[in-house]
Amino acid sequence: MKALRKARPEQGAQLESVSVPAFGPTDALIRVRAASICGTDLHIYHWDKWSASRIHPPMTFGHEFCGTVEKVGGEVGGLRPGDFVSAEMHVNCGHCRACRAGQPHLCRLVKIIGIDADGCFAEFVRIPARNVWKIDPAIPEHYAAILDPLGNAVHTVLAGEIAGQTVAVTGCGPIGLMSIAVARACGCSTIFATEVNAHRRELAKKMGADEVFDPRAGDPVACVLEATNSDGVDVLLEMSGNPAGIRQGFQMLRQGGRASLLGIPSEPVTLDLVSDVIFKGAVVQGIYGRKMFETWEQMTSLLKTGRLNLEPLFNERLPLDRFAEAFALLESGQASKILFFPDGSPK
Amino acid sequence: MKALRKARPEQGAQLESVSVPAFGPTDALIRVRAASICGTDLHIYHWDKWSASRIHPPMTFGHEFCGTVEKVGGEVGGLRPGDFVSAEMHVNCGHCRACRAGQPHLCRLVKIIGIDADGCFAEFVRIPARNVWKIDPAIPEHYAAILDPLGNAVHTVLAGEIAGQTVAVTGCGPIGLMSIAVARACGCSTIFATEVNAHRRELAKKMGADEVFDPRAGDPVACVLEATNSDGVDVLLEMSGNPAGIRQGFQMLRQGGRASLLGIPSEPVTLDLVSDVIFKGAVVQGIYGRKMFETWEQMTSLLKTGRLNLEPLFNERLPLDRFAEAFALLESGQASKILFFPDGSPK
Amino acid sequence: MKALRKARPEQGAQLESVSVPAFGPTDALIRVRAASICGTDLHIYHWDKWSASRIHPPMTFGHEFCGTVEKVGGEVGGLRPGDFVSAEMHVNCGHCRACRAGQPHLCRLVKIIGIDADGCFAEFVRIPARNVWKIDPAIPEHYAAILDPLGNAVHTVLAGEIAGQTVAVTGCGPIGLMSIAVARACGCSTIFATEVNAHRRELAKKMGADEVFDPRAGDPVACVLEATNSDGVDVLLEMSGNPAGIRQGFQMLRQGGRASLLGIPSEPVTLDLVSDVIFKGAVVQGIYGRKMFETWEQMTSLLKTGRLNLEPLFNERLPLDRFAEAFALLESGQASKILFFPDGSPK
Amino acid sequence: MKALRKARPEQGAQLESVSVPAFGPTDALIRVRAASICGTDLHIYHWDKWSASRIHPPMTFGHEFCGTVEKVGGEVGGLRPGDFVSAEMHVNCGHCRACRAGQPHLCRLVKIIGIDADGCFAEFVRIPARNVWKIDPAIPEHYAAILDPLGNAVHTVLAGEIAGQTVAVTGCGPIGLMSIAVARACGCSTIFATEVNAHRRELAKKMGADEVFDPRAGDPVACVLEATNSDGVDVLLEMSGNPAGIRQGFQMLRQGGRASLLGIPSEPVTLDLVSDVIFKGAVVQGIYGRKMFETWEQMTSLLKTGRLNLEPLFNERLPLDRFAEAFALLESGQASKILFFPDGSPK
Repeated sequence: MKALRKARPEQGAQLESVSVPAFGPTDALIRVRAASICGTDLHIYHWDKWSASRIHPPMTFGHEFCGTVEKVGGEVGGLRPGDFVSAEMHVNCGHCRACRAGQPHLCRLVKIIGIDADGCFAEFVRIPARNVWKIDPAIPEHYAAILDPLGNAVHTVLAGEIAGQTVAVTGCGPIGLMSIAVARACGCSTIFATEVNAHRRELAKKMGADEVFDPRAGDPVACVLEATNSDGVDVLLEMSGNPAGIRQGFQMLRQGGRASLLGIPSEPVTLDLVSDVIFKGAVVQGIYGRKMFETWEQMTSLLKTGRLNLEPLFNERLPLDRFAEAFALLESGQASKILFFPDGSPK
Repeated sequence: MKALRKARPEQGAQLESVSVPAFGPTDALIRVRAASICGTDLHIYHWDKWSASRIHPPMTFGHEFCGTVEKVGGEVGGLRPGDFVSAEMHVNCGHCRACRAGQPHLCRLVKIIGIDADGCFAEFVRIPARNVWKIDPAIPEHYAAILDPLGNAVHTVLAGEIAGQTVAVTGCGPIGLMSIAVARACGCSTIFATEVNAHRRELAKKMGADEVFDPRAGDPVACVLEATNSDGVDVLLEMSGNPAGIRQGFQMLRQGGRASLLGIPSEPVTLDLVSDVIFKGAVVQGIYGRKMFETWEQMTSLLKTGRLNLEPLFNERLPLDRFAEAFALLESGQASKILFFPDGSPK
Repeated sequence: MKALRKARPEQGAQLESVSVPAFGPTDALIRVRAASICGTDLHIYHWDKWSASRIHPPMTFGHEFCGTVEKVGGEVGGLRPGDFVSAEMHVNCGHCRACRAGQPHLCRLVKIIGIDADGCFAEFVRIPARNVWKIDPAIPEHYAAILDPLGNAVHTVLAGEIAGQTVAVTGCGPIGLMSIAVARACGCSTIFATEVNAHRRELAKKMGADEVFDPRAGDPVACVLEATNSDGVDVLLEMSGNPAGIRQGFQMLRQGGRASLLGIPSEPVTLDLVSDVIFKGAVVQGIYGRKMFETWEQMTSLLKTGRLNLEPLFNERLPLDRFAEAFALLESGQASKILFFPDGSPK
Repeated sequence: MKALRKARPEQGAQLESVSVPAFGPTDALIRVRAASICGTDLHIYHWDKWSASRIHPPMTFGHEFCGTVEKVGGEVGGLRPGDFVSAEMHVNCGHCRACRAGQPHLCRLVKIIGIDADGCFAEFVRIPARNVWKIDPAIPEHYAAILDPLGNAVHTVLAGEIAGQTVAVTGCGPIGLMSIAVARACGCSTIFATEVNAHRRELAKKMGADEVFDPRAGDPVACVLEATNSDGVDVLLEMSGNPAGIRQGFQMLRQGGRASLLGIPSEPVTLDLVSDVIFKGAVVQGIYGRKMFETWEQMTSLLKTGRLNLEPLFNERLPLDRFAEAFALLESGQASKILFFPDGSPK
């Protein structure tokens, strides 16, 4: 089959012909219909410091996709060839404290398909059957291809109360943008967003943000405080991973508010813990992955009843061999979600 | 009446004779029986940077006490002269977002009696009646004098699940020590504590810690990980306010664990947010004051049924005029709770 | 002033001229702009068994309203003459266990204005200042008059997770209908509703229900199970108070679901506790009043950002002297919310 | 191997010689060390109406045990021959809404080993490997044999706040008695218990109840209200399954309290929903099984740190062939937990 591979520990990727993955008695083999590119894939493509420490070439990357079940192992129940599916790519150990505490998404021995094992930028991908998620027929194919990052957004927004809450979203990359739509669909009050990229600020408006600030022009903290009777917002959804953005987010947060952190800073962050967390009585949540499978269920419900319009996020749809074009587009900051179609071009 | 006053913006304090406080229709006037010295009082005494920015001399300080109701204003119900009481010294505004959200302890306009208004190092103190707390007769007088800091400990420990949870307490000042006793009484599993002061490490053992480490000798993080199957503890109770202690605490915390921060760092703190919060899926809680009045109720229940032995914490009991001796003793690090008796010496 | 009074312990009401209420130092006197009739008022009007046991004539009834502050007592801060307001009519004691546990809406000594004290079917009403709620200027007057029952709906819907949850609403009286709109605004999945009155079934559709059943025709439980893959709904909002409706609601509920009960049965109810609660692992919540003041805050946020369309609920707007007509209309089951304008007719 | 079997659909049981269970690639075969008799086993033994509808003879019953891993299937990781284990006997489907919602203990298609499949009153039992629980070496063997019912108690007590809460336990069978010990260990305030059997009332005292009432003598509701300032208790742990006991429990509960129902009534129960649930703002929880595996973890922590003294609960330790004696003893109401040792008599 065709697969987009990181063949060697260096920048770039190769489209190669490799064997269809073997699969065991508790696995499913999935024929990939559409795969989406994550910011993480861009890091792997460019072979940054993190990639060099985590990825072991040769391997196939990609971890956002939808497809159909091709075959299942002998011990697998509840899945049949032809089922339209996606998958939770975080495979938990089942034995550590978090797994035993009902938090498999926080397993400390997690293996991620597409990072620690061959992923979905290929015609076929092997997935443990318990990680496969059947997709409701009311959900369109291109939405089904981005359930992984949408799940990050849903997980973040619904990690606490959202109905009737004022919200700040710091950082409007794809997951930040999705969070705006999710918060809006779930009855939040005013949404304030910050983003340095003008194209993304426009998208933020389209997704439902009430006020969007460029954090480098003016003082978004002062604006948010003024708009909230000096109280600050009830909920911070931190999507930038930028230390200054994180600090601004905390300053926007009201006493007793919730800060849900998903953005990944590339260095340690210095915080004014006294003002911004302790005396503020803030609840700060690290958000990772998707709850298994509460998040998948919530996301399905929101999508199948048409609560979310994610169309503004979609850009090019390409065959796998135009990968260089895809990565360049994402790199430019003018695209949000690009889809690969490993078996040729989209319908 | 006699009152211990910060008369001028400088180091030290004066015992003065001042008028008994006037009180309004919704206030109570309390005759102080015993008052306890907080670390904050030590800061005020020494007139540190924080004190200089917050305290407006001349004023009477002190905010931990018990006493009896002397008189009540005309609009006050539910309180009578002679009632044995303590008080929540944080007076909330009632109008800000946190107050309206059922979190009066996080009021952003809070005024603290003993800091922003005349406190309890005096024969009498005025308290808004709604902040007065009647004390169960089963609770001994010296315990009644330290409900304010004990409430901090109870608030911190009970801010999440504790039964069956492994716990790390970083910092064993008075509130850290109380937290150990509270966690133990509430069914926690193993308690690990860290503390640089040898005297306090001994007290930590007496209060119920299973293992106590000097963070400057050996590697407490490695010890805790080894003792917990590499998982880390379920709950971090951060009581040190020390940046290195905070970082160690986070490193001891398991994936998906709870970190409740009460200790107050005197400077910004640099955290490895990715490893210690975000990918860890940690829940970090800023803890401030006492929930009004859930914490008071919980504390009363624990005390009146004899669940807490706090005796090891008590040191000297002194008349108000021996204040210099009291502050020196606390300064030495060899005392935890010292009580003043404004109407003379204790029985 | 004019007031609609229950003058004697018997059926009916009288429009009388009475003194403007006296008010104390912690009270506000409110000039009523619009008042809405509750089902409870209909019970009082008809002098049913419950009314005869609870109401002490002569008294002015009515407890849903908006108006402007006329005067405030000497101890009142944060309110000024002219402020546009409504009020939480449940006045809590402040001393019982629920009050101390942060649940003033569950005070066991609660006094309700309009039931236990003179209410708002009058030109003026006296309210303790701490129970007065200032209304956001973005909220229309007729919506402001029904915050009391809307608060019941918001309290019920938001008593647990709602985003992405399937919902059954049993009983589509005014509060049931409002609950449909609130659940929809807060991102719920499919809403199933049951109601015997055809007019209300139509309204339920208008408010956002996906499927509406007449529980006396066909088998709504079977329909809901079929529509939910035999699982049942995630959330039951019980608004009927009808024993058969309550049992049907429980049968529609999934394993581990939430049942929030607001409807008030007039007799004891026989439940299959084993199947419907215990083995089901259900969480059953009794819902009473509005959380003080979280619910008011949530409701304000939803209204001021235009998340709720409640227009289908409004019927006649009448001067106070046409009260007989108003009660007859409500009695007919063809009206949801009728507004009184004590100072004459509406603009 | 020897196994205690329900051979035919009738009263009684037979000790038979049967084949050691076959096991699949994801199963473990366990050599039973000690098994404990549950009230459910007594129902099966007597072949009551419930048993006749649920149990399909011939089958081996028994579902409380500890033992050692004998062999594991080829797909099993994390378990080795010789491991000392117990097991969660509720085997969930993994596909229904509750399973997907992170509540596998509420699976609507659950199969229970010892009820729906051959159980542990035998020398060997087959268990799916994911349901096996490794036992901490600090936990004594006889405690390890009763983790199933102890888990019910822990699940019930820890289903909400318990530290500092007053508690009523209605019904002091084995799980009620264990609940008393667990609540006590977890920092609850006063425990009130009701029980008709005098022997069990004595045990309730030994386990830590503060006041124990015979509900048929005097008025336990009045006593509890008097002892709680007319407020009622914070938490009801309903362990009787008796309709009158359930009603009394609700009457003892404070406004806003928690009622956790584990006892299984044999008929529908008539409740005063208005007074006891709705206006009370009660939270009522159906409790079933044990959370997988949070409850197991909590239980392990409490046991391994010696927080629970369960010795008063243990009675006879018998070889499997003395089963008739065992069931007769339990029947008498003078025994709580009797242990079988299938491989002969206990050490």
